[in-house]
Amino acid sequence: MSLAASFAEPQVAERVEVGLGARAYDILIGPGLLASAGERIAALGARTVGVVTDENVARLHLATVERSLAAAGLGFSTVTVPAGEPSKSFGRLSEVVDGLLAARIERGDVVLALGGGVVGDLAGFAAAILRRGVRCVQAPTSLLAQVDSSVGGKTGINSVRGKNLIGAFHQPSLVLADVDALDTLPPRELRAGYAEVVKYGLIDDPAFFAWLEARPRAAFEPGQDRIRAIATSCRAKAAVVARDEHETGDRALLNLGHTFGHALEADVAYDGARLIHGEGVAIGMAMAFRFSVSLGLCPPEDAARVERHLEAVGLPTSPKAIPGGVGSADVLFGHMQQDKKVSRGRLTFILARGIGRSFVAKDVDPAAALAFLKRELA
Amino acid sequence: MSLAASFAEPQVAERVEVGLGARAYDILIGPGLLASAGERIAALGARTVGVVTDENVARLHLATVERSLAAAGLGFSTVTVPAGEPSKSFGRLSEVVDGLLAARIERGDVVLALGGGVVGDLAGFAAAILRRGVRCVQAPTSLLAQVDSSVGGKTGINSVRGKNLIGAFHQPSLVLADVDALDTLPPRELRAGYAEVVKYGLIDDPAFFAWLEARPRAAFEPGQDRIRAIATSCRAKAAVVARDEHETGDRALLNLGHTFGHALEADVAYDGARLIHGEGVAIGMAMAFRFSVSLGLCPPEDAARVERHLEAVGLPTSPKAIPGGVGSADVLFGHMQQDKKVSRGRLTFILARGIGRSFVAKDVDPAAALAFLKRELA
Ligand SMILES: NC(=O)c1ccc[n+]([C@@H]2O[C@H](COP(=O)([O-])OP(=O)(O)OC[C@H]3O[C@@H](n4cnc5c(N)ncnc54)[C@H](O)[C@@H]3O)[C@@H](O)[C@H]2O)c1
Ligand SMILES: NC(=O)c1ccc[n+]([C@@H]2O[C@H](COP(=O)([O-])OP(=O)(O)OC[C@H]3O[C@@H](n4cnc5c(N)ncnc54)[C@H](O)[C@@H]3O)[C@@H](O)[C@H]2O)c1
Ligand SMILES: [Zn+2]
Ligand SMILES: [Zn+2]
Repeated sequence: MSLAASFAEPQVAERVEVGLGARAYDILIGPGLLASAGERIAALGARTVGVVTDENVARLHLATVERSLAAAGLGFSTVTVPAGEPSKSFGRLSEVVDGLLAARIERGDVVLALGGGVVGDLAGFAAAILRRGVRCVQAPTSLLAQVDSSVGGKTGINSVRGKNLIGAFHQPSLVLADVDALDTLPPRELRAGYAEVVKYGLIDDPAFFAWLEARPRAAFEPGQDRIRAIATSCRAKAAVVARDEHETGDRALLNLGHTFGHALEADVAYDGARLIHGEGVAIGMAMAFRFSVSLGLCPPEDAARVERHLEAVGLPTSPKAIPGGVGSADVLFGHMQQDKKVSRGRLTFILARGIGRSFVAKDVDPAAALAFLKRELA
Repeated sequence: MSLAASFAEPQVAERVEVGLGARAYDILIGPGLLASAGERIAALGARTVGVVTDENVARLHLATVERSLAAAGLGFSTVTVPAGEPSKSFGRLSEVVDGLLAARIERGDVVLALGGGVVGDLAGFAAAILRRGVRCVQAPTSLLAQVDSSVGGKTGINSVRGKNLIGAFHQPSLVLADVDALDTLPPRELRAGYAEVVKYGLIDDPAFFAWLEARPRAAFEPGQDRIRAIATSCRAKAAVVARDEHETGDRALLNLGHTFGHALEADVAYDGARLIHGEGVAIGMAMAFRFSVSLGLCPPEDAARVERHLEAVGLPTSPKAIPGGVGSADVLFGHMQQDKKVSRGRLTFILARGIGRSFVAKDVDPAAALAFLKRELA
């Protein structure tokens, strides 16, 4: 951001409340929030903070946070895990829990998840099971984590049998989404996170999608538009979470693009060099729209608009875009069946009748899905 | 049980309800319940059951349960862990979770914990984190599990830094306490479980303690008295749990005998050849009463009565009774400080003003506690 722009357009933090009664909490979105983490956590009544982060984020942002904790008179101790999805494992979980116990984090204290979705899921889960539950503050540093994973209380790790099959619902006590952190995020990660921003438009907010379409750089540059895009995303997620905390009903809409996306991630064995989560979601959303078109549910123009906007920001929209390609349709189909959204062998998909008109389809014909996958890979 | 006794005294099942609103559930206590597990689990709407058990219990009771599940038309698959406390580890947890995933246990299905408290805690925790929570039915087969660990939703595993430091609150959907299973339980385990029965009298039910004093064989022989002793225990625990599901307040009373007991267990490095949980609790309760006497809180006669009854059934009442002895007072004190009931460095104990008059003492003088430990070990 140029100095001129910064004068012209001062950044103002937004606040989104997640309305969950006794477990309600705030999401703050704005600049400089990491530097204020200490006072905000002290205000929660914690005395000691167990910081969990990854090696990349530690290098770039840990000093700011530790300075802030120290200035607020908090005790703290940091557990750093390797960056990347493989850290969402039982082995790392036990290391993190052990580190937090060694730091003597007690029931009134706080675990601070400082990083992307991997750290958020891992640290959030560790907080959920440490002494049967201590509070967690999420400080998401990736765009994906700011607009999605840090909000809603889903925490967990992966199994060899699939992603996120092990975990807990554990709502954070506060979310600090410091937009300045996005300035150090690799562009590919920023794009990937943007897929989740687009998702909220596609689910049920066509005006937001149109707003994004008109500002394809909004999320990619500092400024108030970025804060607004993130806050709008958080507000959308918060509303769904408040309606359906434990994902028994329409929270499933948040999985738009994820049934296909998870299958693709499993197919490349979670090899981030080939595919990262948000890219899988981008491809998955494009596929969900194409599948909806092929079932006669959605106008082809809407699917084309989705593809166009994703491509405009540099996101992939086809499984064939994945370096090295993917396996057969049958293999992908098998991954989808092991997905936890399978209920009694029937396939649940999030489909769309158009942009902003997504819905849960609980009884999709497996043969139609398999035939679609074959066409996608042909 | 002789045939004559069985005619004279037919055993009638008792039912205890745990009143937790939307999470309310029944505890059934009586004979033949394992053989009816299938129909009762089918009535919960499950289709597939993931049985978790240990090697001892598998040998003695698994066939009964599997026959019953098959007869009820349920799919099932069994994960068997080695018997004993070391199975409450991250390693076993990940094996059990993986086994349940392999068995394709879905959100509507049920995990059946068939065994003592170790299996109950491990399987209950696995159910809590599998797909972020599936239902669990507890089928406790040890006396300790029937009167204590299967009721109340505390689940978890141990850390190298202490017992039960990792876990979740996850209420079962049903508890089936088959008293027939107790007939195969080693006498030492039966005695150990009895310590928890005595505990309920000591906490706040002097009439129950007197009833037990008058019938020292009640829990040790088949018959209605045993069912009554177990049901009274469950009712006491259920009442506390209903008042304080997440152990923020007076649920702590259930820890009578446990602060000392856990320290002793840690001291022998959880070596069951030397000390098992209930034995630690028996010693711990006797110590809590002696400590209360030494603080001038409790009449010495009450402490003597506690010791007498525990000794009458063959339970130990002094740390010096532990084969091989225990470490120094300082070492025991250190274990107590790492206990999760420590809050901000002050020591919380459950003390007593007399039999049935226990209370939470939140601010015990560490010097007094240390001096007491020194006397106990002298
Ligand atoms: N819990 C939920 O509801 C939920 C929702 C969506 C996704 N997720 C999970 O989130 C994970 C993906 O999250 P992610 O995309 O943030 O992955 P990530 O945590 O691996 O972060 C991506 C990469 O960016 C780096 N990074 C993060 N912040 C940075 C910064 N400010 N500067 C420089 N580098 C930075 C990380 O070190 C990592 O290398 C997946 O595991 C997914 O399952 C969870
Ligand atoms: N969750 C809670 O609220 C809670 C409360 C109290 C204790 N606990 C936990 O419970 C555990 C102790 O439970 P436990 O004493 O049942 O230990 P356990 O599960 O190890 O069982 C004791 C022994 O008896 C065997 N056994 C069990 N049932 C049998 C039967 N019917 N016939 C023959 N053998 C049988 C087991 O194989 C084992 O060898 C500890 O880990 C403790 O932390 C939990
Ligand atoms: Zn996602
Ligand atoms: Zn106990």
